[in-house]
Amino acid sequence: MPYVKIEVTREGVTRQQKQQLIAGVTTLITEVLDKDPSLTHVVIQEVEPDDWGYAGEQVSVLREKGITAQNNSNKK
Amino acid sequence: MPYVKIEVTREGVTRQQKQQLIAGVTTLITEVLDKDPSLTHVVIQEVEPDDWGYAGEQVSVLREKGITAQNNSNKK
Amino acid sequence: MPYVKIEVTREGVTRQQKQQLIAGVTTLITEVLDKDPSLTHVVIQEVEPDDWGYAGEQVSVLREKGITAQNNSNKK
Amino acid sequence: MPYVKIEVTREGVTRQQKQQLIAGVTTLITEVLDKDPSLTHVVIQEVEPDDWGYAGEQVSVLREKGITAQNNSNKK
Amino acid sequence: MPYVKIEVTREGVTRQQKQQLIAGVTTLITEVLDKDPSLTHVVIQEVEPDDWGYAGEQVSVLREKGITAQNNSNKK
Amino acid sequence: MPYVKIEVTREGVTRQQKQQLIAGVTTLITEVLDKDPSLTHVVIQEVEPDDWGYAGEQVSVLREKGITAQNNSNKK
Repeated sequence: MPYVKIEVTREGVTRQQKQQLIAGVTTLITEVLDKDPSLTHVVIQEVEPDDWGYAGEQVSVLREKGITAQNNSNKK
Repeated sequence: MPYVKIEVTREGVTRQQKQQLIAGVTTLITEVLDKDPSLTHVVIQEVEPDDWGYAGEQVSVLREKGITAQNNSNKK
Repeated sequence: MPYVKIEVTREGVTRQQKQQLIAGVTTLITEVLDKDPSLTHVVIQEVEPDDWGYAGEQVSVLREKGITAQNNSNKK
Repeated sequence: MPYVKIEVTREGVTRQQKQQLIAGVTTLITEVLDKDPSLTHVVIQEVEPDDWGYAGEQVSVLREKGITAQNNSNKK
Repeated sequence: MPYVKIEVTREGVTRQQKQQLIAGVTTLITEVLDKDPSLTHVVIQEVEPDDWGYAGEQVSVLREKGITAQNNSNKK
Repeated sequence: MPYVKIEVTREGVTRQQKQQLIAGVTTLITEVLDKDPSLTHVVIQEVEPDDWGYAGEQVSVLREKGITAQNNSNKK
């Protein structure tokens, strides 16, 4: 009986990316825990950048300062 | 800034399985959303079978009746 | 000191249905646990069908395929 | 696709009371929202009285002062 | 590794008040638990008054009756 | 009607620290949002270091490697 909640800042997550997250998490749990996928629920909750704080500052403020959450190790 | 909560019934999840869930979810989110892994937190919450209800019954009662959550498509 | 969170897909839940859920859950907890209703908070969170996954698929996709969550045993 | 989390202080909730909460919430949601009970998950989370604060004080401290959460209107 | 979720009714919380909440909670946790602020995430979730129930009634209904959540001890 | 959930790793948080968190968060919300403290609930949830993942690794593993979450700017 797994239930998964994914909270991310609302910064342009597409419908396809959501589907990839839902499918990926469900496959992961099915494989690692041997759970029935039809008992696995995944909920994505997008949070406005004004409503997420990190290191004491709103993400919206961090973005205005040019600070991103992108994965720099992916960059070439 | 992703935060992920995974709730599962407490039925013998090992430390290694937890590590697989944490690594797998973090990799998935890093790849799908291009997020920095060091901004991705994953919390696993195990729930006693008496405390999880499904279809109106406690999972502990379902287990006593021989009903499992195993993925039958994995079985040989 | 109970706090209850009800998450449902956003599919036309009316204000009156929300009131029935809030009143019903509060009465249930008051009766079963003998709690003071004024210490019982209930929060309803509606989730977009794109944001809820079940069996690895978005509810919005399941709906497009004609799969519903309706209680068939209620149907005549 | 409803998911319900019930948080209460850990103060002697019995297995039978948990079953009553799970059955009662599932019936309520099935009736009010016409949802399939097998898509309804209910999780009960008990919280230690040291870990729940109300009006700025730990419930454990309130209990030591003789303040309860019982429903006085039920008393004779 | 702290994560904090603040749920409040959506009743005109300003961007500045959100910043005060995020900064205040982060400072509090940094001081009390000696945690690195850059590992502290705070999420604010505003809930519609129709979706929050208290004592069995929707907050929107309580507001229509003139009942507020304001701190009367602050009033002069 | 605020409700606050504080999730931290279970690493020796004392009863007094919990009281400081509860009192501090309640005061902050009362002051910033002008809310009645008796409508403010705060729940602390301690999470085992095996169950919290950060940057793809369990906190328990990070601790074994000598990596802490302490606030270095506090150190002398």
